[in-house]
Amino acid sequence: MTDTIERSTASGAAATSSTSGDLHVDSAALAEVLFARWADARKHSRELLRRDEFHQIPGLSVAEHRLRVSGQLTRLVEEGVVHRAFPIALGGEEDHGANIASFEELVIGDPSMQIKSGVQWGLFGAAVMHLGTQRAHEQFLPSIMSLATPGAFAMTESGHGSDVAAIGTTATYDPATDEFVIDTPFRNAWKDYLGNAAKDGQAAVVFAQLIVSGVNHGVHALYVPIRDGRDFLPGIGGEDDGLKGGLNGIDNGRLHFTGVRVPRTNLLNRYGDVDENGVYSSPIESPGRRFFTMVGTLVQGRVSLDGAATVASKLALTIAIRYAAERRQFADGASDGEVVLLDYQRHQRRLLPRLATTYAMSFAHDQLLEKFHGVFSGEQDTDDDRQDLETLAASLKPFSTWSALDTIQEAREACGGNGFLAENRFTQLRADLDIYATFEGDNNILLQLVAKRLLTDYARRLAKPDAAAIAAYAGQQAGAALGRSGLRALGQKIADFGSTARSIGNVRGEAAQRQLLTDRVETMVAAIAGRLKNAGSLPAVEAAALFNENQNELIEAAYAHAELLEWEAFSERLAVIEHEDNRKVLTWLRDLFGFTLIEKHLAWYLINGRLSASRAAAITDYIDDRLLPRLRPHAVALTDAFQFAPEHLRAPIATGVELVRQDEARAYYAAQKAAGTAPVEEKVLAKQKKKAAKG
Amino acid sequence: MTDTIERSTASGAAATSSTSGDLHVDSAALAEVLFARWADARKHSRELLRRDEFHQIPGLSVAEHRLRVSGQLTRLVEEGVVHRAFPIALGGEEDHGANIASFEELVIGDPSMQIKSGVQWGLFGAAVMHLGTQRAHEQFLPSIMSLATPGAFAMTESGHGSDVAAIGTTATYDPATDEFVIDTPFRNAWKDYLGNAAKDGQAAVVFAQLIVSGVNHGVHALYVPIRDGRDFLPGIGGEDDGLKGGLNGIDNGRLHFTGVRVPRTNLLNRYGDVDENGVYSSPIESPGRRFFTMVGTLVQGRVSLDGAATVASKLALTIAIRYAAERRQFADGASDGEVVLLDYQRHQRRLLPRLATTYAMSFAHDQLLEKFHGVFSGEQDTDDDRQDLETLAASLKPFSTWSALDTIQEAREACGGNGFLAENRFTQLRADLDIYATFEGDNNILLQLVAKRLLTDYARRLAKPDAAAIAAYAGQQAGAALGRSGLRALGQKIADFGSTARSIGNVRGEAAQRQLLTDRVETMVAAIAGRLKNAGSLPAVEAAALFNENQNELIEAAYAHAELLEWEAFSERLAVIEHEDNRKVLTWLRDLFGFTLIEKHLAWYLINGRLSASRAAAITDYIDDRLLPRLRPHAVALTDAFQFAPEHLRAPIATGVELVRQDEARAYYAAQKAAGTAPVEEKVLAKQKKKAAKG
Repeated sequence: MTDTIERSTASGAAATSSTSGDLHVDSAALAEVLFARWADARKHSRELLRRDEFHQIPGLSVAEHRLRVSGQLTRLVEEGVVHRAFPIALGGEEDHGANIASFEELVIGDPSMQIKSGVQWGLFGAAVMHLGTQRAHEQFLPSIMSLATPGAFAMTESGHGSDVAAIGTTATYDPATDEFVIDTPFRNAWKDYLGNAAKDGQAAVVFAQLIVSGVNHGVHALYVPIRDGRDFLPGIGGEDDGLKGGLNGIDNGRLHFTGVRVPRTNLLNRYGDVDENGVYSSPIESPGRRFFTMVGTLVQGRVSLDGAATVASKLALTIAIRYAAERRQFADGASDGEVVLLDYQRHQRRLLPRLATTYAMSFAHDQLLEKFHGVFSGEQDTDDDRQDLETLAASLKPFSTWSALDTIQEAREACGGNGFLAENRFTQLRADLDIYATFEGDNNILLQLVAKRLLTDYARRLAKPDAAAIAAYAGQQAGAALGRSGLRALGQKIADFGSTARSIGNVRGEAAQRQLLTDRVETMVAAIAGRLKNAGSLPAVEAAALFNENQNELIEAAYAHAELLEWEAFSERLAVIEHEDNRKVLTWLRDLFGFTLIEKHLAWYLINGRLSASRAAAITDYIDDRLLPRLRPHAVALTDAFQFAPEHLRAPIATGVELVRQDEARAYYAAQKAAGTAPVEEKVLAKQKKKAAKG
Repeated sequence: MTDTIERSTASGAAATSSTSGDLHVDSAALAEVLFARWADARKHSRELLRRDEFHQIPGLSVAEHRLRVSGQLTRLVEEGVVHRAFPIALGGEEDHGANIASFEELVIGDPSMQIKSGVQWGLFGAAVMHLGTQRAHEQFLPSIMSLATPGAFAMTESGHGSDVAAIGTTATYDPATDEFVIDTPFRNAWKDYLGNAAKDGQAAVVFAQLIVSGVNHGVHALYVPIRDGRDFLPGIGGEDDGLKGGLNGIDNGRLHFTGVRVPRTNLLNRYGDVDENGVYSSPIESPGRRFFTMVGTLVQGRVSLDGAATVASKLALTIAIRYAAERRQFADGASDGEVVLLDYQRHQRRLLPRLATTYAMSFAHDQLLEKFHGVFSGEQDTDDDRQDLETLAASLKPFSTWSALDTIQEAREACGGNGFLAENRFTQLRADLDIYATFEGDNNILLQLVAKRLLTDYARRLAKPDAAAIAAYAGQQAGAALGRSGLRALGQKIADFGSTARSIGNVRGEAAQRQLLTDRVETMVAAIAGRLKNAGSLPAVEAAALFNENQNELIEAAYAHAELLEWEAFSERLAVIEHEDNRKVLTWLRDLFGFTLIEKHLAWYLINGRLSASRAAAITDYIDDRLLPRLRPHAVALTDAFQFAPEHLRAPIATGVELVRQDEARAYYAAQKAAGTAPVEEKVLAKQKKKAAKG
């Protein structure tokens, strides 16, 4: 068997093919699969991102970095990449999928540039667009789009992040002047962590408890000018959040308001309005549903973080795998040569399952983006669609942001000291992405939301929530419940498949992987539902305690659900890959993803009788003895399919320099040997002497 | 049951007690247990570290940070904290344990200051001390100790880090001038990642292949002047490693040598010397053993990283647990109040097992430091002692450095946006400690070393390494093998205990935990030994392949061994805690550590028939339902026992500010309610209207 890798860099972007035995992976063809529906938007961003001007410069001071990123935003406006989602009437394209796709790629240039763009157009601008009506669109959007008015998205407060409904800021209607008066009643109600608040922001969308005639109508958003140039407007104050663990190109800060007045028409009034007589009205009667609808329109932050985390993982793995395929350490025990890192089983174990996870993230994100586009384009925009979109985003974002941190860190460690040098990208990428795990929804809180949704859907099927009913429904209905939430309809397949895999053969197949992953989610949800079934009849304190006693497992169930979604997305995509060898190698990669998940939760499968001990052990053997060796020859080609140009990677260790240096070292020793000037090793000399003494 | 926490900060350092039910934890008493044998040295460092001058200033430029740290090193000399290990004749104290203990604490001030001190006195200076003889001590140590000569430890090269024996730099003896000539033959032989090399270093201990009369005697160390002030000496060149992921207060860089001449007597000649006639001699005949002996003298780097990682974990957990005990989010469902984060089960699951791990790290490190002190003081310095010290260090350093990164990250996420602000310490601490996982021995490589040691010890017991012999030995001898390596003699205890726990009662006890953890290590080692038993009779290529096929499990076995050592150290310490309630709470914490380890490896216990499914499930329940609720009231007191003063913590969220702000918010709402000015909630109003319409 000969393994070969060929690289053509004529296009600038990497494009290799790998051949192992009869199998030939075509990276360029695979790249098109990965670029998916909004390939043009992604490629447009990638092309821009080859320019120095959009690159992060490591080691800038906070002030310099902020200035640079502000300038980059201006350039992004000029390049026309940030208006795709806005109304056509205002110069936008109303293309929500393309907008997010091109936005996610910005992480390649500098995550600060990405997130600051997100603040301006994805949060501040999107809030005006989605929570405002034509009046606000015409009045505020043009200068937001052009960046004439940089703005903050003033939702989070020092005291309340995850629990937005409990924020303290108030907007009180004053009929005397037909204005709203914005107030910060105490320190913990200061708006906090807001991008654009410390320096650049000229206005903000401020979320506040809307009080009209002594009635609190709950959280609403208002457009509030905050600065005139560099100075705060009267009644407004703030602080700089200062140095952060990453994303220091963004000027995060705090804001507070004391009797700040804005016209009544500055209320973003799509879901709640006050008329000229001071009367409040809303198209959504329930204050609770109204709140969740408003917050739900802002889901794009979570969607795009899922995609950006995926891009960052691809970047880190490309660098680490290229290096691992060249770097050698320790003699190979046979010749004079040394072993390539990627030939070590442990190194494969460290990098290849994470490569599989990254492919899953990419395919799952495509589905999320399709769903997002469907809802926001109006093509598929029912209440169910919106709920499913939220659940999907709340599932995938924790999975991908945590996976990205894990992958970048493993990649950094796999490159040793080289991995710690800023020039090789890992450390800054990880530092910048750290916060992705807790902003736009803390990952643990998001998973709890998903879990509650799964439980609710499950309970909805039960006429009477008693134990017998739950037990009866556990087998057939859990799948339907997931189906109802628009995610997957799996119950049938499971029933057909039987409850325990009986041979390694059927453990290995796609159907077995699906069964094992699905069954775990359903059984966990059913078990928790069973334990919570009487919560409704308990006093509030006891019900809360009962819920809390199940909180950890609840979140684990939601994570299992996210893992299933990722695996499903990977499997579904296999079906549409036309290139036969690509499909074959990607099937192994999907299997590696699936088996790695199953291996991680092996204890659960054993405890619950889903796998026998020998089948369980066979899974680890199958990963180590079959999948890793099969995938190893294609590892570089699988990262080349991510199509990063050298200007995207910007990591010296990903350029082939290590190979050049090793060739130089080998040539030195070979020349020495040929010239007869190589010193003899002491131990060799000792052996020779011993032999001579004997003879 | 009433839980109370009292804090007295009269001493500056925190000292609380927690009372829950009948149980009273005394933090101050516990602190003395944690400070352990070299408490005075630790407290001396802690006292110094309260001063601003030793604190990291977040956000400095690389140049400013380097300058500050260089200045701090001068101050450390003046304060007399960095000479404890050096010869008494030269003004040192020859107190190796105290030296490391006080050094580890420096991480509190700034990890850059810690590691740069480590470079100067723990690597550069220690190499002269341990590899040189009196001649070098008298000639070089005084100016190293005084910092008159800052120096680099030039071992690692761009091409070889883990495989030091394969470095390319040469030191060739020139009999004509009685000098050594140092050369860098190719780019990958440049010395790399060296602290003090980019700027401050005036000399270096250079590791090179020692070539005398055409014979290569292997890697030896030489003292080589490299700079005169700011300029490199002739024949020497170098580069700055530039910005790194952390530790930017250290001037890491590269060095290369072209025909650089030093006197013959600059060879550090304890383990290999060249006399005035140009004849090489060594007290250690085997070049292999000589190399490992020389490298072995430099174990203190690994020892101190283990300790520093433990201190950093304590710091992160103190900040996160204090915040978690004050911060509230989401209504409690019963009253008007909100739930304290640390009352959430998930939050307990995130922080308390890591607190248990940190206690284990602290106690295990004490044992490592005792061993280190025994060897280097000469009190217990046999070949076996040295080997055991190396194995212990190579086991604990990976465990603690990875655990520290995991703990700091979880602590950061547990504090949300606040955790991402530099002022709260987590992000910089994590960035600085990142490299601890791969320097002074890459964690994976160290574990592989340990695994080989375990295998060797195991195989040594076998007269003939055939399958039957291995099977026969598996039960009785694996324990003895570990015992021989000076780590633990456990075989006997296991034999007494039987092979499967039969009730939750005996799964819960200390003996059961010990059996489960020990059994796993021994069985894994025996199984791998069985698979490798014929490796000796295979061709080299096939033997290497066979070894590689077991590499992942081999490293996992070494990690299991490290976990066992950590657990044993925790358990042994329990026996000497006199304060009854402290011992009781720490026993729960040890149980949490043990059960968390067992839970992590539950699949192994199930597959190998060590636990039944119901017993396995009971372990998770026991953690969630018993241990976490029992420990929760004492969590703050358990971190107060780490005794960090506010000047050590330097994190606003650890100061109680959150509680003050919440009180302010509550007071605001209470006053509003009392005055009758609180707005009525829309949904409450709607209910009232509905009621009125009905009535």
